[in-house]
Amino acid sequence: MQNDDKIYISYNQVHKLTKEAVERYRINEIYKPDLMIAIGGGGFIPARILRTFLKRQSGQNIPIQAIGLSLYEDLVTSDPDIIGTQVIKTQWLQFGPSYTDICPLLGKNILIVDEVDDTRTTLAYAVQELLKDIEEEKLKFIETNSAGTPIPETKLAIFVLHNKKKEKRMELPDPSIVNEGRYFAAKETPDKWLVYPWEANDIDEHTTKSSLQENNE
Amino acid sequence: MQNDDKIYISYNQVHKLTKEAVERYRINEIYKPDLMIAIGGGGFIPARILRTFLKRQSGQNIPIQAIGLSLYEDLVTSDPDIIGTQVIKTQWLQFGPSYTDICPLLGKNILIVDEVDDTRTTLAYAVQELLKDIEEEKLKFIETNSAGTPIPETKLAIFVLHNKKKEKRMELPDPSIVNEGRYFAAKETPDKWLVYPWEANDIDEHTTKSSLQENNE
Repeated sequence: MQNDDKIYISYNQVHKLTKEAVERYRINEIYKPDLMIAIGGGGFIPARILRTFLKRQSGQNIPIQAIGLSLYEDLVTSDPDIIGTQVIKTQWLQFGPSYTDICPLLGKNILIVDEVDDTRTTLAYAVQELLKDIEEEKLKFIETNSAGTPIPETKLAIFVLHNKKKEKRMELPDPSIVNEGRYFAAKETPDKWLVYPWEANDIDEHTTKSSLQENNE
Repeated sequence: MQNDDKIYISYNQVHKLTKEAVERYRINEIYKPDLMIAIGGGGFIPARILRTFLKRQSGQNIPIQAIGLSLYEDLVTSDPDIIGTQVIKTQWLQFGPSYTDICPLLGKNILIVDEVDDTRTTLAYAVQELLKDIEEEKLKFIETNSAGTPIPETKLAIFVLHNKKKEKRMELPDPSIVNEGRYFAAKETPDKWLVYPWEANDIDEHTTKSSLQENNE
């Protein structure tokens, strides 16, 4: 069988990768997330699977908030060294009335979830925008608490199924995510085209290709 | 092998069910959705798969907005005939700045997506709350358009993987969804415990149970 330059990933592989990563990074024991933020649409499926394996001491599910980000790469530019990139928000956080907390992000361990870290542009944008929201919450906190009350510490982390080993176009605006070990990639992959199962037109054919590749590894 | 009273559903079954339902109901040809609203966390996975099979004439992806709803069933009540139910919003719509439209719901065909229609409580609540938002947008539309401009028609529809054949606790507040054929259930099931793959601890065991049940059908 001729192998093209794509990597086919089955649903069961995604499920196992997620489970193994939670155990390997000891996410429940060390990071202990309070909240997931799924970047749609790619982050929706990993986030839902993660919820099965992430456990809080209370026994309750980790809540998932969704944000919508789209990456537009504008390759038409007068300077060939500049690749214009733009991320647009199609949905942002809107905590429902069940959140009585006026600072729903502050003091939380927030796990940002996406399928793949390719150029890092989308993830960097998500972190940048969340940091702005957290800064706003800090101001609200200072306004509504007596002087000197310590501001609760908020810790961002990232979970992706795949991190492509390549030069990244952007750095994360919060370097502590990488430096303090809160960047969780279930798998490192070469810079190839990853075909996720949810994109498959014929899922049987896709699963067969995936298991052939797995057996050849 | 002793079959317990649960129905095990594999990822590939979910994927195929979704594809088949899109074709069977001719959703792309007849309903032509403009927007999906995924009820989290159960609706996230079907919505992402649906996006692969739903096509717009423009060739663009159907955008997915996420809402978070949790169903609390309070079984402790003085009257045994009354089962208290309450749905709470954990996240609601927040269209990002890429939506320049001040009425992002109005005139759209909006497909609400969830995994299962059990008692219909969550779906009825989602429809009720969306109808309120649409009413607000109608008022805005009337304010910002010249008198007599016809208000664009908004059509809600529902997609679920499974509809349990049972007496429903709630009716949908918009009867046209059912009456005009915009209620899309990929499969009708008996009132049994459905075990979705994303809930599985051991996905290999789960997939095996699912295919054994499929072969016995």
